[in-house]
Amino acid sequence: MAPVKLGLVGIGKIARDQHLPSLGRSADFDLVAAASRHGGVDGVANFSAIGEMLDAMPEIEAVSLAMPPQPRHQVAAEALMRGKHVMLEKPPGATLSEVEHLTGLAIANGVSLFASWHSRHAPGVEPAKAWLRAKRIRAVAITWKEDVRHWHPGQDWIFEPGGLGVFDPGINALSIATAILSFPIWLTAASLSFPSNRQAPIAADLSFSGPASETITAVFDFRQTGPQSWDIAVETDDGTLTLSAGGAQLRIDGTAEDLPPEAEYDSLYSRFAALIAAGDREVDLAPMRHVADAFLIGDRQITEPFVFDLARGA
Amino acid sequence: MAPVKLGLVGIGKIARDQHLPSLGRSADFDLVAAASRHGGVDGVANFSAIGEMLDAMPEIEAVSLAMPPQPRHQVAAEALMRGKHVMLEKPPGATLSEVEHLTGLAIANGVSLFASWHSRHAPGVEPAKAWLRAKRIRAVAITWKEDVRHWHPGQDWIFEPGGLGVFDPGINALSIATAILSFPIWLTAASLSFPSNRQAPIAADLSFSGPASETITAVFDFRQTGPQSWDIAVETDDGTLTLSAGGAQLRIDGTAEDLPPEAEYDSLYSRFAALIAAGDREVDLAPMRHVADAFLIGDRQITEPFVFDLARGA
Repeated sequence: MAPVKLGLVGIGKIARDQHLPSLGRSADFDLVAAASRHGGVDGVANFSAIGEMLDAMPEIEAVSLAMPPQPRHQVAAEALMRGKHVMLEKPPGATLSEVEHLTGLAIANGVSLFASWHSRHAPGVEPAKAWLRAKRIRAVAITWKEDVRHWHPGQDWIFEPGGLGVFDPGINALSIATAILSFPIWLTAASLSFPSNRQAPIAADLSFSGPASETITAVFDFRQTGPQSWDIAVETDDGTLTLSAGGAQLRIDGTAEDLPPEAEYDSLYSRFAALIAAGDREVDLAPMRHVADAFLIGDRQITEPFVFDLARGA
Repeated sequence: MAPVKLGLVGIGKIARDQHLPSLGRSADFDLVAAASRHGGVDGVANFSAIGEMLDAMPEIEAVSLAMPPQPRHQVAAEALMRGKHVMLEKPPGATLSEVEHLTGLAIANGVSLFASWHSRHAPGVEPAKAWLRAKRIRAVAITWKEDVRHWHPGQDWIFEPGGLGVFDPGINALSIATAILSFPIWLTAASLSFPSNRQAPIAADLSFSGPASETITAVFDFRQTGPQSWDIAVETDDGTLTLSAGGAQLRIDGTAEDLPPEAEYDSLYSRFAALIAAGDREVDLAPMRHVADAFLIGDRQITEPFVFDLARGA
């Protein structure tokens, strides 16, 4: 098949770090245009808004949206209504209801919608899922601690309403957990820490349960300096599985498994191409539903103000 | 058909005000037992927990849960796993994910699950939906203001995490709005006011949008003394519809429509009986999803402390 002509919308950090390199390697897609209020992409047609891009280049068949969640819904809706296949960065929207709306639009317009969860494409995830399938699970401990100043420098949108705060990385952990466990889980308690000057939490402690009273805990913290933790430990009746480095490393009872190198976004674009070819959609809201549940039932603690730039106090 | 033998769980204010009178009038159900940590019901077998009730009276075919949302999931899960039909008060759970789990259990056990929204059974709702069906809607204004001290005297659970605060009545408005509108809506902005001594909001301002950029606003306030407001006004290209008194009154361009008397819970139990007879389930999470979305993207304002008993300051 000829490569699918694609426009990339939102040329920020994640676009440059991940989307552009993966699209550069992809045989499935031909990046022909970009739309962004700020940056541009060398070697393709650049526009400041998606409407201009789709007006000027009707040959575009698919768009990938790498922008923050808050403004994404309107752009996604426009693309779907114009008959374009759409891939969404995680989280797929600012609200659950707007993603339900996009799903309805994709069905009505007969196009593919892919709500991507890049961490599910980490190399250890499928082997972990396969190993756990026949085991009886006793406990799951998720530890997701990173330095927001390093990974999201100056990205104030992450602490705005809808930016999710520490759940922006934490939802990656939940996307993995909900992929490797073969049973549903539900939140039973949550404690969220909000900096006094911010509208989204900087840390969270979550407790979930499952059908056999499995104990599932998650600790998210955006204030981690030094070693960073993106670990999921699963205790079973037949040994302990540990996914670490965000799913890039897998240990069974302490012994490392051989895994291919990390290629999350290459895998995402392969999946998007497969969905387009098959005329399918993939929109799993479970990780985002758990986050919404945490905001819904979490108790809220107020903590010290957070500033990105310690030197400037801004 | 013989009446369905039913056990009522949670004998508090809503059970006494609504469930017991409606069950007393129902030809579809035979109330044979009650389970509650506190009160009991005259003339039926009384138990302190659902497990005891179902152990002692295996002839019970259905249970109705009139308890607060926080402890309800475990009780509902036990009933479903024991093959009983279940009716849930609104909201159907503390979290979205636990209701998803209950839906899975109901399917797996081949029983009916009815997540009830009593306000959808108000007499004006079906006529409003019918009148709006062919109209072009421009704006919807929801005003839901009531005195929490009058309607929920001393009910501290409503301000606990998961108790929803002003969304406990507000979700009734959303259940009506999502029933009478023929198109999906999604939240675009929310502002939530939390008393400094409470974990759930006492007031909320919400803005939604719809597929044709309809303007939908909702104002919820739990601090309303004097006249109470439970109104939904819908402006269309062909006149204005006003539902008031929580759906019990309907006006078209200011002229009152004739409606039957209020009988929400009688109608709920009729619906539950019909679902059981047909082997069906009815679980619409849309109202609760909008509330979760409001907690997810809402900006949080801190307001003055709230006490139920102004004289005692408690």
